[in-house]
Amino acid sequence: MDRVFGEISGIVEGQDFVDRVGLAAAGVHKPTQAGISYSEKDGADSIVLSGGYADDEDFGDLIVYTGMGGRDPNTGNQIADQKLDRGNQGLAVSMREGLPVRVTRGSTHVNPFSPPTGYRYAGLYQVEDSWHETGMHGYMVWRYRLVKRNQMPRVQVSLSSAEAEPGGPADRKAVSVQRIVRDTQIAKAVKTKHACKCQVCGTAIVTPSGLYAEAAHIQPLGRPHNGPDIEANVLCLCPNHHVMFDSGAFRIADDFSLLGLEGVLRRVAQHTIDPVFLTYHREHYGRV
Amino acid sequence: MDRVFGEISGIVEGQDFVDRVGLAAAGVHKPTQAGISYSEKDGADSIVLSGGYADDEDFGDLIVYTGMGGRDPNTGNQIADQKLDRGNQGLAVSMREGLPVRVTRGSTHVNPFSPPTGYRYAGLYQVEDSWHETGMHGYMVWRYRLVKRNQMPRVQVSLSSAEAEPGGPADRKAVSVQRIVRDTQIAKAVKTKHACKCQVCGTAIVTPSGLYAEAAHIQPLGRPHNGPDIEANVLCLCPNHHVMFDSGAFRIADDFSLLGLEGVLRRVAQHTIDPVFLTYHREHYGRV
Repeated sequence: MDRVFGEISGIVEGQDFVDRVGLAAAGVHKPTQAGISYSEKDGADSIVLSGGYADDEDFGDLIVYTGMGGRDPNTGNQIADQKLDRGNQGLAVSMREGLPVRVTRGSTHVNPFSPPTGYRYAGLYQVEDSWHETGMHGYMVWRYRLVKRNQMPRVQVSLSSAEAEPGGPADRKAVSVQRIVRDTQIAKAVKTKHACKCQVCGTAIVTPSGLYAEAAHIQPLGRPHNGPDIEANVLCLCPNHHVMFDSGAFRIADDFSLLGLEGVLRRVAQHTIDPVFLTYHREHYGRV
Repeated sequence: MDRVFGEISGIVEGQDFVDRVGLAAAGVHKPTQAGISYSEKDGADSIVLSGGYADDEDFGDLIVYTGMGGRDPNTGNQIADQKLDRGNQGLAVSMREGLPVRVTRGSTHVNPFSPPTGYRYAGLYQVEDSWHETGMHGYMVWRYRLVKRNQMPRVQVSLSSAEAEPGGPADRKAVSVQRIVRDTQIAKAVKTKHACKCQVCGTAIVTPSGLYAEAAHIQPLGRPHNGPDIEANVLCLCPNHHVMFDSGAFRIADDFSLLGLEGVLRRVAQHTIDPVFLTYHREHYGRV
């Protein structure tokens, strides 16, 4: 798949484009008509705000975005309920998986943040919330709360490697974006191999947009641990067991038996865990 | 209790103090000798870096801080293992509860970020990780990863009220700090009333530093929901059921029976939930 999540190489925030064709050619937003660039399975990577939805609210760093569908193609009025499918499902997947969404504003989206003409790339946003409500025209619409990402967590993943840190804020931001996306791919691979089932309890969290699990690094990323971001250093856990593992409430022996909990770590043939990381975790976490 | 978490009114980041007495009088760090201002139960609110620990690492926005105890009072050398008690437990509680920790650097902490003389308040940090390791002197020490908070999540709590958002970045930051602390108090009260037991499954997550639960707002904080930050709008949930509730995987009827899951919400007499918030959640979340 050639769907790119995160920054497009060579494109900077605030960059202007004459038209949708130019925006597509640059790789920022590939569809030349649709407002959402998405896959129902992999998520939405980009949206364009062009004033089509009366319900949209744009506060700059915070955007309340309306989903797609249910509109009269001639008048643009909402004439039916929107469904949790297509771009709406794509945005829900981006939220569930923590994927960054590129945002571009068009001049037809009347707003202080929009360009006078053409299109302006506004940077990466995070989908923080999705819900449905009755829109201005009396039909159900899906809504998404998008928050600008450079004001989002500089989470552990953003400081994952020693070389990422000596630089100043500009360096750090650039590295952060790349790393989040890279981590996302490793995380996704491990979660897919386990079908989102927790390796401790077997639970897969069911949500309306699909199954949810978390990728837990065994030897943590970032200073001073500097664990590698590879599948052999990642577990697929439910949120409860992720909290417990990170705090050292349980640990894992080299034979994969659990220490502090009953049972044995659930494994699948395609996902090999390197015991060197389990040793690191055992030696650093938990009450001694 | 008069332990203040977060900013001290009238004190700005970068402000200098002549000595520890002045720092204490300003309310930034009340103990005049100890490096950690803490309660084992409520958490640590402040630390002072003064060069006492050879193991400390300070990268400015990221500090790897060494816990207290086990040192020879004359030489300052580590002569015994540190325990997860006193300030070490306090910092672990701050991590578990997401409390901000004030950081001050003294001139004796030799570092580009330290003042030439006296003490300099460096702002709020978040405890992101805690673990133990064998320190430079061969004894076990507790270690904490502290990350500067203005680079931390502008989480939902920081945009909780309509008046918090129209301002520029400076306004937003100031509001953010106050709100995080306020939310923390509401969250703490609800979690205490439920003894950290999930109101859906009854699970209390056991961690080495104590029980862990999450406070889930029923009608979300922040635009456009603008749910209030009051106990009647908060549930005590385990991380798994928090994820499920926020996604609408289950909802709650006015009689507190669960919709989408078996059973009834667990309640305690001291915590009243207002059905108006349950209605808001039912009407906005979940597959329709």
